[in-house]
Amino acid sequence: MVAGLLVTCATSHQQLEETNNMETIISSKTKETVIGTERPFTIIGERINPTGRKLLARELEAGDFSRVERDAVAQTEAGAQILDVNAGIPMIDEPEVLAQMIQLVQTVSDLPISIDSSMVEALQRGLEVYQGKALVNSVTGEEERLESVLPLVKKYGAAVIAICNDESGISHDPDVRFAVAKKIVQRAMDHGIPKEDVLVDPLIMPIGAVQTAGQQAFSLLRRIQTELGSNTTCGASNVSFGMPNRRAINSNFLAMLISNGLTSAITNPLEEALREAILAADLLMGHDEFGMAWITAHRNKS
Amino acid sequence: MVAGLLVTCATSHQQLEETNNMETIISSKTKETVIGTERPFTIIGERINPTGRKLLARELEAGDFSRVERDAVAQTEAGAQILDVNAGIPMIDEPEVLAQMIQLVQTVSDLPISIDSSMVEALQRGLEVYQGKALVNSVTGEEERLESVLPLVKKYGAAVIAICNDESGISHDPDVRFAVAKKIVQRAMDHGIPKEDVLVDPLIMPIGAVQTAGQQAFSLLRRIQTELGSNTTCGASNVSFGMPNRRAINSNFLAMLISNGLTSAITNPLEEALREAILAADLLMGHDEFGMAWITAHRNKS
Repeated sequence: MVAGLLVTCATSHQQLEETNNMETIISSKTKETVIGTERPFTIIGERINPTGRKLLARELEAGDFSRVERDAVAQTEAGAQILDVNAGIPMIDEPEVLAQMIQLVQTVSDLPISIDSSMVEALQRGLEVYQGKALVNSVTGEEERLESVLPLVKKYGAAVIAICNDESGISHDPDVRFAVAKKIVQRAMDHGIPKEDVLVDPLIMPIGAVQTAGQQAFSLLRRIQTELGSNTTCGASNVSFGMPNRRAINSNFLAMLISNGLTSAITNPLEEALREAILAADLLMGHDEFGMAWITAHRNKS
Repeated sequence: MVAGLLVTCATSHQQLEETNNMETIISSKTKETVIGTERPFTIIGERINPTGRKLLARELEAGDFSRVERDAVAQTEAGAQILDVNAGIPMIDEPEVLAQMIQLVQTVSDLPISIDSSMVEALQRGLEVYQGKALVNSVTGEEERLESVLPLVKKYGAAVIAICNDESGISHDPDVRFAVAKKIVQRAMDHGIPKEDVLVDPLIMPIGAVQTAGQQAFSLLRRIQTELGSNTTCGASNVSFGMPNRRAINSNFLAMLISNGLTSAITNPLEEALREAILAADLLMGHDEFGMAWITAHRNKS
């Protein structure tokens, strides 16, 4: 057993050094979303999540899923390429509610789903009812999480978001966060999960609390791309916590992150400034051939 | 002579490899502007330039300098830290008009000036009347330009913008543009101009014509910072030529450029979206302590 593990690790190390243009594929029953550095940026719609949305939380508790349906449709129309679904309400039967929400979203949108929970049992129930190759949101570098989430990801042939914290919390040292990312990617490979199926989240801190939060994110993204060859994702709106005009900070930050290698983000496609920043960044990264997406978006407006 | 040059070059090469936090200082009689990677971004106000401004061109031809005065004041109030002054009108006595414009701007703004001309004689007249350490805009990698502009820069103790093209034109190959930048920086040092007094302009192409224009700029900026250790500037609005909603492309591009190391730009401080992008980028680069500039800018608004 130990010998076998060592052999696996040696192979993993070898693969880790390759840094080709990796593509992460997530799919629904009928549609594929491909995440990659040579592709337009991927928006993972964040709206179907009761955290901080009291009204949605109350409705879900009462068994009213109509807002889930509306959010799924609105985000799909607004250009999301994956929909995140979260049922994290205290005292609720989260596995059951999450499974119901996923089943509902599958009937109203053809987009692939990111199954979002901190409960392993809820991730499992979500994976059971999901039709396609899901994105599991998420696994951390904590031993107990690695060994409970990764086997599920492997079993269902899913992809997974790797968050750069572990038992010691979220380090303010980007080298430590990078080491955690590397550990998760290697462990996933040890479990037989292909490297391209791990999306690394460098963890964005609020700039109001950590003055180097932006610089940390930029250098981490570049290292993850060049040294791990992994695709990346993040929740980019945390950065502006407590600041005025969060919209402007978030949209400019997203463009900056994309120019440093970020390939996807869990964000709100209904926010015009974010959509505009992403379209502009695609154009400026050379991922919008002949500027067709940019020009079309502005033709429709006038 | 040849032996002496070789010795100088060897020294230059050694210095070129140092990549400390370089600071470029430009000054007026009473005020210093410091450009550097650990500083807030520097806006070089572009408005005092008749190129593409027919009304201003006609007024200047008629000896009416009132718009120059208004543009100087407005850009100073809007947060420019250097004012570019250009008198490039066909068939005009450009050296004389440029000298008059510089003298006028010096009386209404305390900002340092970027003396902008493609005519060596005009640069010389401008430097003669300027009080302080000017920024000379610009020198290219062409032999004739190097050997006529750099001696002037040295004589007047000015700083200079180095534009990455030479006799063969503007290369679409970023490696060639980098080689031109390196040649200019080394030649400046051969002329006794300190390396920190050369601001490198990577030359931004229109994204509508060159799909890799953005990527080229990002990688060139990172190389100029890490391999040359030079500060940088550019005209960032050229990138959106021919595209709809240029404002959004330009402001997002500027944020992306800053996150890849750009330290200054020749741009319009009166454009709200650009100012907002620069303030947000300063905050996100960790160059706005406690977010004071961002918070103050938004407090004044409400």
